Amino acid sequence: MSATEQALQAIDAGMNKSLDRLFELIRIPSVSTDPAYDADCRKAADWVVEQLRELDFNASTRETGGQPMVVGHYGTKTEGTPHVLFYGHYDVQPADPLELWDAPPFEPRLVETPSGEQIVGRGACDDKGQFMTFIEACRGWKEVTGSLPIAITVLIEGEEESGSKSLGPFLDSHKDELKADFALVCDTGMWDAKTPAITTLLRGLMLEEIIVTAASRDLHSGMYGGAARNPIRVLAKIIADLHDENGVIQVPDFYEGVTEPTPEQKAQWDSLNMDEAAFLGEVGLSVPAGETGRTVLEQIWSRPTCDVNGIIGGYTGEGTKTVIPSQASAKISFRLVGDQDPLKIRENFRAFVRERLPADCDVEFIGHGASPALYVDLSLPEIGKAADALTAEFDRPAAMIGCGGSIPIAGDFKETLGMDSILIGFGLDDDKVHSPNEKYNLSSFHHGTRSWARIIGALAGQ
Amino acid sequence: MSATEQALQAIDAGMNKSLDRLFELIRIPSVSTDPAYDADCRKAADWVVEQLRELDFNASTRETGGQPMVVGHYGTKTEGTPHVLFYGHYDVQPADPLELWDAPPFEPRLVETPSGEQIVGRGACDDKGQFMTFIEACRGWKEVTGSLPIAITVLIEGEEESGSKSLGPFLDSHKDELKADFALVCDTGMWDAKTPAITTLLRGLMLEEIIVTAASRDLHSGMYGGAARNPIRVLAKIIADLHDENGVIQVPDFYEGVTEPTPEQKAQWDSLNMDEAAFLGEVGLSVPAGETGRTVLEQIWSRPTCDVNGIIGGYTGEGTKTVIPSQASAKISFRLVGDQDPLKIRENFRAFVRERLPADCDVEFIGHGASPALYVDLSLPEIGKAADALTAEFDRPAAMIGCGGSIPIAGDFKETLGMDSILIGFGLDDDKVHSPNEKYNLSSFHHGTRSWARIIGALAGQ
Repeated sequence: MSATEQALQAIDAGMNKSLDRLFELIRIPSVSTDPAYDADCRKAADWVVEQLRELDFNASTRETGGQPMVVGHYGTKTEGTPHVLFYGHYDVQPADPLELWDAPPFEPRLVETPSGEQIVGRGACDDKGQFMTFIEACRGWKEVTGSLPIAITVLIEGEEESGSKSLGPFLDSHKDELKADFALVCDTGMWDAKTPAITTLLRGLMLEEIIVTAASRDLHSGMYGGAARNPIRVLAKIIADLHDENGVIQVPDFYEGVTEPTPEQKAQWDSLNMDEAAFLGEVGLSVPAGETGRTVLEQIWSRPTCDVNGIIGGYTGEGTKTVIPSQASAKISFRLVGDQDPLKIRENFRAFVRERLPADCDVEFIGHGASPALYVDLSLPEIGKAADALTAEFDRPAAMIGCGGSIPIAGDFKETLGMDSILIGFGLDDDKVHSPNEKYNLSSFHHGTRSWARIIGALAGQ
Repeated sequence: MSATEQALQAIDAGMNKSLDRLFELIRIPSVSTDPAYDADCRKAADWVVEQLRELDFNASTRETGGQPMVVGHYGTKTEGTPHVLFYGHYDVQPADPLELWDAPPFEPRLVETPSGEQIVGRGACDDKGQFMTFIEACRGWKEVTGSLPIAITVLIEGEEESGSKSLGPFLDSHKDELKADFALVCDTGMWDAKTPAITTLLRGLMLEEIIVTAASRDLHSGMYGGAARNPIRVLAKIIADLHDENGVIQVPDFYEGVTEPTPEQKAQWDSLNMDEAAFLGEVGLSVPAGETGRTVLEQIWSRPTCDVNGIIGGYTGEGTKTVIPSQASAKISFRLVGDQDPLKIRENFRAFVRERLPADCDVEFIGHGASPALYVDLSLPEIGKAADALTAEFDRPAAMIGCGGSIPIAGDFKETLGMDSILIGFGLDDDKVHSPNEKYNLSSFHHGTRSWARIIGALAGQ
């Protein structure tokens, strides 16, 4: 029996303990965007360090201006085998709205469903369940061979859900320590529950918060209504102006750098037989709401977007309050493709907003993350090895897919460390990532762990 | 010395105790719109009953489906003197945003300012300070003559700030008990700090809450962005469509029943020499934002409006969350004039919203209050008596003004009880009604109390 096969057996036998460890991690509410959870983020980082040390990694937390990084090193590169950098993140999205969860978000549980057992809790998939598949695969290898067959550096960050502000500076100041032959990133999905996938297209992301202020205080809408500027109306008009009736984004020069998918890409996407009705139907929708004349796969993989992720202004409690508020604000995000320049788009967006500000209004902009889209190099030989390993585990060919979400780290690895990234994950469209009742199929966790064990073996030539 | 003059002396001498009583009332956080304060509303109602009983009113609270009413009766109508119904409200607006108050909103205090002492606290003006002027005037009369010279029924409600839902049914079922010769209402303002006023035009009000729902759950904007409908964007577009570029409201047939002020009204308004720059400048604005080609007085007195009083959707906490929310909602209010029909406008507004709903979106409407505008009959002889009393107290003619706010009670009194209303109040534009740091000038409280004592005397022919 090959070492890989032995590792797979060890993984199967230890699945209950693997789950216990994942549950321990999910119980730590490491919400990075809210300072109230800073101590929990630190606790999660320490917990990951502990896991890595058990596997003989030289691991530690590293201070940043924000949440700490976890870095761990195992082994040294030997002739003929690669040194890989594995990336994941221990932080999670806020759990609200809490009232929509069937059970407390940070009390993970295993739920029986017609399509198999599911791990439910905030972070079950994104990204705790995902990155733990790699750690548990290492554990399987360690258990049966006493060591890992390749040199591995692990980098688990704690600010992925809040714009990864510390990551760029950290990579920059730790180039020598973090540089490897290529990166493995576990934060993406499968094509469907039975078909593994490697993600080769990733949209970029630019996040802006805008705060519109009019009067110096909240006003009585009876006394001032008709004469006073209402910042909610100003903000609504700006948001309404962002798209035309065909869903085309109106920020000047926004589509500069947007490329159409190649005929080969289109052909491969067509071969996936995307079920648009099922994709939308699963979340209660029926009609693609994006740019007219585009397939859903194009809309979510190869077209840029502009969405409002949150808005608030005035009285939002129960009942009514006849107020003209002083302020209204919105969180707006752009998904980017091709060579769109996030910083140029930020600048143009701000100009677009300022142009629409009527008299007596001020606007404050808070820039959050900004990262370009990414195309993964398909000619990288390790991509073939990983695809073969996935194909062996799932007994069907791995799909080469796009991803609507943003994993800015892949761009940073390319830019700062000159490394390509191979994006392999085991999430599913119905995992309710960022939503109440987030889940990760037990089969994703199990096959995911086994897949990484196979990939590690394949990269080691075993 | 006349009885009125004796009452005025007693009022002057007792001002500190009058203030103590007002402070006691302000300390009760009777926020009617939020069920968390239901017990406080009841406490405020009981407190008012106690005050009236001290003055020998036959007073009690009356249960409704919402907050209790306070009703008190004093004396019986005698030949040659009127029986008046005095109206005020003990409930107040929510105090949020709390962080903008200089001191806790329900801990009233007297603050020295260059323009005199001010009573600061939620409800200091609206309407606790205002209606207490009448109660304290009665106390002054009672003190010096042992009785009140006219028959008075007092009605103090507890839902004025939340749509007065119980009031219509209550008037309907207590017609015989509440019917008087006319009503006195203390919930309006002076023209300026030195010029008393009787309000003869009041805008109506129609309040709607709309909740737009798209997907069945919150979605990851990466995975679904570009394909999924965003209810914040749908809501923003609806709000943006409500006005054209000249501020004209686009709801079909909205302006049906809107009348232009008469040349006499316009001439009187011009004679008031409204300082538009000062009115707007006091709240940090400089340009009238309403319909183009209208003066500010027209915009706030004789023109209808549509404003958004609150909006919320998606992630509104600190930082970012890349979510496409399932739901977004707004509280929208219309100020009405002339013969605009609030129920017809509600219907047309709902149709306007439904027409703009794209595929996969649902809307829920929650109707709050709806009341038409009101014109007070200037030929009522008691208006002349009240104006003379005000003129004597302030040593300058009382102005006949409009009011942008809505006091639906006046319409209800006319419709259900067949009574006219005389609207006299002592609020000022800078009282920050419905805003943080709400205040009532001590001089408003003092002259207001004295004014009512004079009016009571004038109505009694004394």
